[in-house]
Amino acid sequence: MQRYFVTNQQISSGIVVILGSDCHHIKNVMRMQPGMAVEAADETGNVYACIIDQLATNQVILKIEKKLDRNTELPWEVTIAMGLTKFPKQEEVLRRIVELGAAGFVPVEMARSMVKAKVTPGAKLDRMALIVKEASEQSLRNKLLLVLPITSFKSFLEMSKNFDLCLYAYEERGKTDDFSLKGILKRFSGRSILFLTGPEGGISPQEAERLDQSGFHAVGLGPRILRCETAPLYAMCAISYEAELKNES
Amino acid sequence: MQRYFVTNQQISSGIVVILGSDCHHIKNVMRMQPGMAVEAADETGNVYACIIDQLATNQVILKIEKKLDRNTELPWEVTIAMGLTKFPKQEEVLRRIVELGAAGFVPVEMARSMVKAKVTPGAKLDRMALIVKEASEQSLRNKLLLVLPITSFKSFLEMSKNFDLCLYAYEERGKTDDFSLKGILKRFSGRSILFLTGPEGGISPQEAERLDQSGFHAVGLGPRILRCETAPLYAMCAISYEAELKNES
Repeated sequence: MQRYFVTNQQISSGIVVILGSDCHHIKNVMRMQPGMAVEAADETGNVYACIIDQLATNQVILKIEKKLDRNTELPWEVTIAMGLTKFPKQEEVLRRIVELGAAGFVPVEMARSMVKAKVTPGAKLDRMALIVKEASEQSLRNKLLLVLPITSFKSFLEMSKNFDLCLYAYEERGKTDDFSLKGILKRFSGRSILFLTGPEGGISPQEAERLDQSGFHAVGLGPRILRCETAPLYAMCAISYEAELKNES
Repeated sequence: MQRYFVTNQQISSGIVVILGSDCHHIKNVMRMQPGMAVEAADETGNVYACIIDQLATNQVILKIEKKLDRNTELPWEVTIAMGLTKFPKQEEVLRRIVELGAAGFVPVEMARSMVKAKVTPGAKLDRMALIVKEASEQSLRNKLLLVLPITSFKSFLEMSKNFDLCLYAYEERGKTDDFSLKGILKRFSGRSILFLTGPEGGISPQEAERLDQSGFHAVGLGPRILRCETAPLYAMCAISYEAELKNES
């Protein structure tokens, strides 16, 4: 079933007004007709089964049939922080962590980042918002992931105070088997997780020290060296596996 | 540490002879000099700490210092089978499942595959072998993953008899929470796993039926819909998480 994310203002008294590129998508890409079924998801995670009522030039009117009770959101709110890398890698990670259920994404300026941008250009933020919307619709998410702009390491440490659990992937710890992501996740009883993975060159020892001082736990993601764009996917899959898959069949 | 995969014939009496593109890599890309350290991995999973002894025009001679006892291979031999898709998607999946520890990869002709190739062209097989070698060196694998050519669904079912556990990702089962990958992996006491994920259009109900008849277990990979190139990564991360991460920190 095709799903469209809409703002709360687009919904009122049993009607959803579809605008812009979604209107184009329904009319010209999907070539849908009145009477056909689609789903609309609002900003608070509600999803509605709808019927196309009317196709106008610049809008499509949907009638809400019923509210669906299926929730595909992870029980934990996970924000993936990633050492700043080139934009195509960020894009790829973003697209996949949406599918895997992340609630937020933040690129962090780090010592070994090859890219030295201080701010995310507006056009890139728009592009990332579009990626999030498309991937959320395809993967049938209830809520949109929040993309934050490029954040300094200092601001990132400040921001981490708002999370119940802060983790970072540190290959040196993975090698020595000193720390266990699995043990930490199994004991976790909070709601929000912040998970940092490094840029291409990895997290520097100085950064690791500051993370430790700020209450982060270092975790290894297995014995092999993962590329910087694979580590966030491993983190999300591990969290989904632990939180969403059942022990008994 | 830079690692190079070599054939067993390139190793004898404490000497490794590096040839071809690896020779070029050491001399012209890494610009290494005699006395510098590299690692060589043979075909059986042994890894040796070596010192560069001599740089000749078409070969580099390494002296073996000692055999390393670090093993980064998954305790289970996992072969990822994937419904045939366009080549760039296969490549991306291949590169990442090498990092995540898979032992084999096989593209399977399936009913909903958009691509209708019957055989893998020789040049593609060469390219895939190169991807495997590079990704194995970067991720510090002990062994190279084996890439099989495109296989018909019938041959694939035949081939599955050689595995201790056969699984397939089926989103319909994920939705109803009927089957649990986690429960199956926790109970698994064998050695080899075959894990099939579908092409873009998914696995057809007829194929699911034949898989069930052939002893496969259908498993869900969480409540969200994963794209065809994300599902194999989830499978590998879940297996690594279950088999490699410790319960206690």
